[in-house]
Amino acid sequence: MGITIQDVINQLIEPVGILEETVDTLKFGSPKTEVSGIAVAFMPTCDVIKEAIRLGTNLLITHEGVFFSHWDKSNSFQGVVYDEKYKLINDSGLAIFRFHDYIHQYKPDGITHGLLSSLEWEPYVEKIFPVATVLKFPKLSVREIAEHVKQKLELNFVRIVGNTSMEVTRVGVFCGFRGGGNQVIPLMEEESLDLVIYGEGHEWEAPEYVRDSNAIGKEKALIILGHAESEEPGMRYVTKELKQLFPLLPIHFIPNKPNFKVV
Amino acid sequence: MGITIQDVINQLIEPVGILEETVDTLKFGSPKTEVSGIAVAFMPTCDVIKEAIRLGTNLLITHEGVFFSHWDKSNSFQGVVYDEKYKLINDSGLAIFRFHDYIHQYKPDGITHGLLSSLEWEPYVEKIFPVATVLKFPKLSVREIAEHVKQKLELNFVRIVGNTSMEVTRVGVFCGFRGGGNQVIPLMEEESLDLVIYGEGHEWEAPEYVRDSNAIGKEKALIILGHAESEEPGMRYVTKELKQLFPLLPIHFIPNKPNFKVV
Repeated sequence: MGITIQDVINQLIEPVGILEETVDTLKFGSPKTEVSGIAVAFMPTCDVIKEAIRLGTNLLITHEGVFFSHWDKSNSFQGVVYDEKYKLINDSGLAIFRFHDYIHQYKPDGITHGLLSSLEWEPYVEKIFPVATVLKFPKLSVREIAEHVKQKLELNFVRIVGNTSMEVTRVGVFCGFRGGGNQVIPLMEEESLDLVIYGEGHEWEAPEYVRDSNAIGKEKALIILGHAESEEPGMRYVTKELKQLFPLLPIHFIPNKPNFKVV
Repeated sequence: MGITIQDVINQLIEPVGILEETVDTLKFGSPKTEVSGIAVAFMPTCDVIKEAIRLGTNLLITHEGVFFSHWDKSNSFQGVVYDEKYKLINDSGLAIFRFHDYIHQYKPDGITHGLLSSLEWEPYVEKIFPVATVLKFPKLSVREIAEHVKQKLELNFVRIVGNTSMEVTRVGVFCGFRGGGNQVIPLMEEESLDLVIYGEGHEWEAPEYVRDSNAIGKEKALIILGHAESEEPGMRYVTKELKQLFPLLPIHFIPNKPNFKVV
């Protein structure tokens, strides 16, 4: 008997232990199935699923859910797209495991670690908090940092709040949907951050705090990467870890194409 | 005795009646104060507050909250920015009334009405739902619609999901933070919408639904305006209504500058 899906899951969750409440469940497939190969991606889009099948893998590990909902409450979204996607997965026999909560609870957070590694920013790490990492840079402008991020992550654009020519040293990095005011604003105040880089957050929260901070003469800025853009590097890191854990299995990373364009 | 703040509030809420639970409260000031002039804005930023004071008004009516939080739970955000902004308002004696829930409950929704009016799209309205309006256009490409929106609303950019050269006829418009999957996806299915235009929504919901819909051959697209960009026209409409209700009061609309730039 070879390696089963449950064996792979056990290895992935081992650094954390069992979580009582989690979205990290096997969405399709059986834990006893022997693994022929693993595909890893940020988002299980139809294109990613087709590519995983084409590559001959039978286990897809993704950070986000299958049916457009964090809580995977897919019932409300039933319709043509749901039906066709469900059929695509079900007919193929592909198993899908969601790897979201556990990787965020690695120490340090595996998704943030993957992002900082892709940006080659580990030497600047000053403090690691559960939801954010604080970096201390030599003086760099917001624009210089934005250009570095775009180049390293191969992004077509980022959004910026504040003055692009402002020089910053203290920078907070928040992956995914951690760009909310409750996370970002207290850390900006407590850690005297000049710049926060985040994935996604409500527009009326941290962006408005930064706007008002600039208005009272305390210069701050935000670089907003996009949710997928901030977390996909973490799933590349997961792929590397899996290759070390299961050196004899075929393991592939499948990138998502950019979903947003700017006109 | 002239017109009091309470008189103005009474007129604004009259089309709806009293809401039991609402964020629409007087955040600063006293209802009995006589109104010297009214300023209206989408977001009560420090710059807007200073301009309202400069214009000699003593009542500012805004759609969003003062301290970076929908529920106006400002305690968690106390710090330098909170303190300075609080002092700016308190020292000036400016009253601030939030006008959010009531205007959304006008029939039709006053914020959506203002947006459609600014876009000159009233002739295309087919159906009005509480959270969205469905339009039927002659065949237009997504890019043509995006360019029209940018020109009419004076936007520097919009974000797009899907094919910009796709031709659409059935379009849904969702203001503000109504771009969530629970709102957008069912209406796209039920009303066979080709395109949805929204303010703000979670990136893993409607955008991923649209991506998968395109992957299975059902072409759809999104144009994402930004939260403020989608709702500020509604507050311009409120200004016009106030001028009719109180023709003898000085009443000013104060636009917010764009808060996001793209690099």
